[in-house]
Amino acid sequence: MPKMVDPIERRRELAQAVWRVVLRDGLDRASVREVAREAGVSMGSLRHYFGSQSELLRFAMGMVIDRIEERVAALQLPDDPAEAVSTVLAELLPLDCERRTENEVWLAFTARALVDPELRVLRDEAYDRLRGACERWISMLLAPDLPREDVDLESERLFALLDGLAVHAAMRPQSPDRLLAVLTHHLAQVSEQMRRT
Amino acid sequence: MPKMVDPIERRRELAQAVWRVVLRDGLDRASVREVAREAGVSMGSLRHYFGSQSELLRFAMGMVIDRIEERVAALQLPDDPAEAVSTVLAELLPLDCERRTENEVWLAFTARALVDPELRVLRDEAYDRLRGACERWISMLLAPDLPREDVDLESERLFALLDGLAVHAAMRPQSPDRLLAVLTHHLAQVSEQMRRT
Repeated sequence: MPKMVDPIERRRELAQAVWRVVLRDGLDRASVREVAREAGVSMGSLRHYFGSQSELLRFAMGMVIDRIEERVAALQLPDDPAEAVSTVLAELLPLDCERRTENEVWLAFTARALVDPELRVLRDEAYDRLRGACERWISMLLAPDLPREDVDLESERLFALLDGLAVHAAMRPQSPDRLLAVLTHHLAQVSEQMRRT
Repeated sequence: MPKMVDPIERRRELAQAVWRVVLRDGLDRASVREVAREAGVSMGSLRHYFGSQSELLRFAMGMVIDRIEERVAALQLPDDPAEAVSTVLAELLPLDCERRTENEVWLAFTARALVDPELRVLRDEAYDRLRGACERWISMLLAPDLPREDVDLESERLFALLDGLAVHAAMRPQSPDRLLAVLTHHLAQVSEQMRRT
């Protein structure tokens, strides 16, 4: 290790070691000992950055969201609302190796969140942010005077579709073209239905 | 325990003890020891019915699918194809306590299947059966001469929507009415789109 260590960078590297253990052996194997071994550091060194396993896991889970939000923020969005929505949503699907990794790690953490109150807080925050984002995107596609109930229904449908596609992609490798085709078809249907109302 | 024990019934009872441990403490806590304790039997008694933890977990996972398929097979379906599809699909959503339990147990097992090859086989079989069923249901809603590619796309969209709704319902309790409203809206849209082509 060089003498000058960026602590933020170091925490991210350790979180990536958590990800590798999760992907290979499952989340219940991601003990402090195992993660230190995976990262090639001593347990004392790891504890310098994370006071507990719980803190390590929460950081590793939060990093999935951080990375997706960083990528979305860096997107150059087209002016056309429908194209902009499509561009952002495509960023959320596991279309390449990096996003497939994040997707599988995320699924492992959300399953654990069913029985872990601390992870559940993180999951619920992420859920609320993504649900809110779906509402904004759907509002860009729909007529501005649409009843609130219709916006809600379409937002929930889009959100469920996105998560369902992600879950399926984790189970069975799907070609990026295929995932994009379903998403594009759905957005076209939503826009089309609006033009008729 | 009465002297006459139905071994099939006994295996189901033990699998339900697995479910309770999974829901309360998570799948990684469902050891033979813990499940025997939960079921109120000795480890030797449990091993009489399941030779290994792996066999116990596979049976407990398979029982989720068995119960859903038993319920679907017992449905009285309306003659109208759209209503029949809607009735079957509603059976798959976590609309009551029993189905919410099965849904959460299933999610825990599918997450574990990401790193467990034996559970992955079961998950993939269930996935294929449900994917095939989605195709048949979509074919009932669509024009018979629709290109294969369109049937595929709509089947994948429906399948992803169903699983996404189930995942979200496990994360945040949703009213049955709400889940049904999204499903009904989706099926209406699919049928409507077909009438226009």
